[in-house]
Amino acid sequence: MSSICFQNFKFASPATMLKLRFCGSMMRCLSRCAQKKYEPISISKSLRENSPEAYAIMREAVIKLERQSARFTNVLLSPKEQAANEVIMREKNAEYNKGYLEPGNGNTDEPPYLVLNKIKETPLYSLLQKMPKGGLLHAHDTAICSSAYLVELTYRKHLWICTKNEGADAIAFRFSKEKPTMKATEECSWEPMEEFRERRGEANVIKYLLRRFSMYPVSSYATNNAAWQDFMSIFMLLDGLLLFAPVWRDYYYNALTELHADGVQYLELRSVMPNLYCINGEQLDIMDTMEIYKSETERFKANNPDFIDAKLIYAPLRIVEPKVCEDYIKNCIAFKKNYSTFLAGFDLVGQEELGRPLIDFVEQLLKLPEDINFYFHAGETNWYGTSIDENLVDAVLLGTKRIGHGYAIIKHPLVMNMLKQLDIAVEVCPVSNQVLQLGQDYHNHPAAMLIANGVPIVISSDDPSFWWASPLTHDFYYAFLGIAPFHADLRFLKQMAMNSIRYNAMAEEEKKKAFEKWQKQWDKWIDDVAK
Amino acid sequence: MSSICFQNFKFASPATMLKLRFCGSMMRCLSRCAQKKYEPISISKSLRENSPEAYAIMREAVIKLERQSARFTNVLLSPKEQAANEVIMREKNAEYNKGYLEPGNGNTDEPPYLVLNKIKETPLYSLLQKMPKGGLLHAHDTAICSSAYLVELTYRKHLWICTKNEGADAIAFRFSKEKPTMKATEECSWEPMEEFRERRGEANVIKYLLRRFSMYPVSSYATNNAAWQDFMSIFMLLDGLLLFAPVWRDYYYNALTELHADGVQYLELRSVMPNLYCINGEQLDIMDTMEIYKSETERFKANNPDFIDAKLIYAPLRIVEPKVCEDYIKNCIAFKKNYSTFLAGFDLVGQEELGRPLIDFVEQLLKLPEDINFYFHAGETNWYGTSIDENLVDAVLLGTKRIGHGYAIIKHPLVMNMLKQLDIAVEVCPVSNQVLQLGQDYHNHPAAMLIANGVPIVISSDDPSFWWASPLTHDFYYAFLGIAPFHADLRFLKQMAMNSIRYNAMAEEEKKKAFEKWQKQWDKWIDDVAK
Repeated sequence: MSSICFQNFKFASPATMLKLRFCGSMMRCLSRCAQKKYEPISISKSLRENSPEAYAIMREAVIKLERQSARFTNVLLSPKEQAANEVIMREKNAEYNKGYLEPGNGNTDEPPYLVLNKIKETPLYSLLQKMPKGGLLHAHDTAICSSAYLVELTYRKHLWICTKNEGADAIAFRFSKEKPTMKATEECSWEPMEEFRERRGEANVIKYLLRRFSMYPVSSYATNNAAWQDFMSIFMLLDGLLLFAPVWRDYYYNALTELHADGVQYLELRSVMPNLYCINGEQLDIMDTMEIYKSETERFKANNPDFIDAKLIYAPLRIVEPKVCEDYIKNCIAFKKNYSTFLAGFDLVGQEELGRPLIDFVEQLLKLPEDINFYFHAGETNWYGTSIDENLVDAVLLGTKRIGHGYAIIKHPLVMNMLKQLDIAVEVCPVSNQVLQLGQDYHNHPAAMLIANGVPIVISSDDPSFWWASPLTHDFYYAFLGIAPFHADLRFLKQMAMNSIRYNAMAEEEKKKAFEKWQKQWDKWIDDVAK
Repeated sequence: MSSICFQNFKFASPATMLKLRFCGSMMRCLSRCAQKKYEPISISKSLRENSPEAYAIMREAVIKLERQSARFTNVLLSPKEQAANEVIMREKNAEYNKGYLEPGNGNTDEPPYLVLNKIKETPLYSLLQKMPKGGLLHAHDTAICSSAYLVELTYRKHLWICTKNEGADAIAFRFSKEKPTMKATEECSWEPMEEFRERRGEANVIKYLLRRFSMYPVSSYATNNAAWQDFMSIFMLLDGLLLFAPVWRDYYYNALTELHADGVQYLELRSVMPNLYCINGEQLDIMDTMEIYKSETERFKANNPDFIDAKLIYAPLRIVEPKVCEDYIKNCIAFKKNYSTFLAGFDLVGQEELGRPLIDFVEQLLKLPEDINFYFHAGETNWYGTSIDENLVDAVLLGTKRIGHGYAIIKHPLVMNMLKQLDIAVEVCPVSNQVLQLGQDYHNHPAAMLIANGVPIVISSDDPSFWWASPLTHDFYYAFLGIAPFHADLRFLKQMAMNSIRYNAMAEEEKKKAFEKWQKQWDKWIDDVAK
């Protein structure tokens, strides 16, 4: 039937029709539809002479074909999962009816955190929070824990704060028994944290720090560059607080705790691997930093048997001379030697616009041994046709296993096709992209095109600490309601969770076990939701 | 060489490598590069064992291949055009350096018209305004002329205004010798325009009307729906002013004059084809409306020999019961009978979210004779997976010759591929999409993906009157600087101009002549710029 259809089918002219490559498969699909559900209806020679019934068949075939290219539509649901799906879709539609996902709403002056807080109150959010989401594959070392936890840390003994403008602006922290002698990034004066707290009033200090540890108010950023400037200033402020070895250890353990409570069972953490310091000012080796990560991971796993694991991506700053990258490579080889399975791979971090493009480091990067994988940030921009979005080409040609952000990927159809063919997943971070001014309206987020084209993605949160988002649930909420198609359902959520294991850095044997642990939690959750 | 390369080339694993369909063509391209420019360098078995030189060749091949898929990169420039291109690129880079195209800038509170005014002052804008841009293929009957011209019209004899809130809100206009008896859309009181002007002060009235005839301030729109509500209210207010037959005639002639001065030589106008009225209240037949269009077009052509032509797309409202579409079809057949070549085709207009989707009208639409083409609005939304963006499927399956807006097309890869294969152009209206809240940042405009994928587009302005934009130049400016790749140059501009003739509704013989007329102006412009 398909070839007959093909002959009789006419769009514009026979010449253009012959070019219609998709037609063969459309007609096969059409013919299947016709055999299964309908009486065969012949397609007219002219479109206008079609009967409305024939048109309806043709249309259904196209819509079906289209939807199939979004991979999640092929996920199968058990009867119990179907029951759970009904609950979820009911809540999803309730959310749509509230209207704050209406197109254009992202453009209002309402700060994202107020929306994030509203979202937290919804039944759908509760469902998503409890959902076993698998792994978080894109998150940065000092930007995971809640701001409330950061404030708690400022109550620790021997903490000093360096402020300017009579205490109005916090510039640095430092743990020390004596007044610190180190220079901060700006001129400022040191005082013990207790004194600062007393002088300014505890409530004021808490309020100030909560704000200062975040990027709010976001509305003051005119551009992506302005947002990045503030973003980096938080990282720098936090250094003195978090690089204190005992705090570093506790911060990481707490990050795992918060993630776990948010339905995350696995973490691949990007760390710049800084030198930590002790109370006497002594600097530790970066191998000690690694050891803290490793031992805290083991401790957490021992205390939480359903937690799968964590691994580390060594991700130093890209805003360096290429020769510095040689040191990075040496460090990475040393990490691999001592922490062979704990080290997931290598990346470079920092704003792509200001840092160097990957092409500048190719000579060094090619020297990394083949058993260390790349997990490159690339294309975290909405520019098109610059050295920044062309990082995407280098990431793929260097053999990256995943792409961090890849916001600009949709302007690179060849690279997008390579991702599909090579099964490279894009780490999509919806809230991060909004706060960092890449796009305001989730409906325009490029991940929708990745979904439509069947490019593998995982949902990640990047730096949730800095915008008061939950460790991963808010990003799932926006991916589900704002980015995925209107009809996306539990199949989409299930695929996102499974992708986070499929595309992680584990060896095949590890993955198998990880899937089992996830499945156990998943089945339990489905049971709960279906009830 | 290519097959040897293929064998020795390894990305991730041999299995995934075999799937790498693009590799054949990449390797052929690579081999060509190598033969032409470089000493042949063998590609290593492992990516990491590549030399930086081999990597550079491979990378260049991929970047070249990528850029080729954007059609404009294949446009050839004469030596004179190359000289003009240097001037244009110098001015383009100067614009980038001013920073208001920096990503994220669209998110600020600065109203678009202030930016539009700034743009008008730039040398690049002057160049683009004088550039022969070919045809404007997407514009609506009562939304082309400048607001200043609309204010001028309010000085005509026998005009009445209906206001509420003691004259603070204009609800309707009407030309009449006596006080109008007709009901306006809201309760209001009629008074002669002269009296109103005197009572409120002329300067105030001018200021008020300029604002009221536009969508500013745009910042008050929370959503796309809110923007549409105000948008439609301007159309309704203008009805009484413009549907007066003598004014209708002059408005259209003035639209052609403004377009012509903005470097436009051809127009395909979408009109709802309203019944016009005379000073005694008599209603004219819609065939009279058509006749005014036709005779004014001829008059304008006679007065401006370098102007190519205008055609009309009959485009009544989609927010009707399907049976009303039967009347539309009858009207359209009558238009075709009397104005065979002047009628370009048929469309349905109005907000897709509120109006009916095309699928509801299929039975009626299929009855339109085959010699009347469709030019459907479809997918003017950023929703994904709803009846609104699925209008795109119906537009193509009904055999549309172009797509109006198609903002959601990138979420429909199959339809996007069909556009490419069937050579259907998308009418891209950048400023309209911003004002109507589909997206704030031009860097995220979906047309970038259409360009990257080689889907044909034309640049249009939709309703420039309502946002104080120039008839077409502002949209070209944003398409060139905000949407097209950083490296887009005169080749892009030339292709956009040529596309507007290639994808218009003319017969082949007409097109040939149109190209000649355009080429003449183009060569003159190139001469001027190159000097």
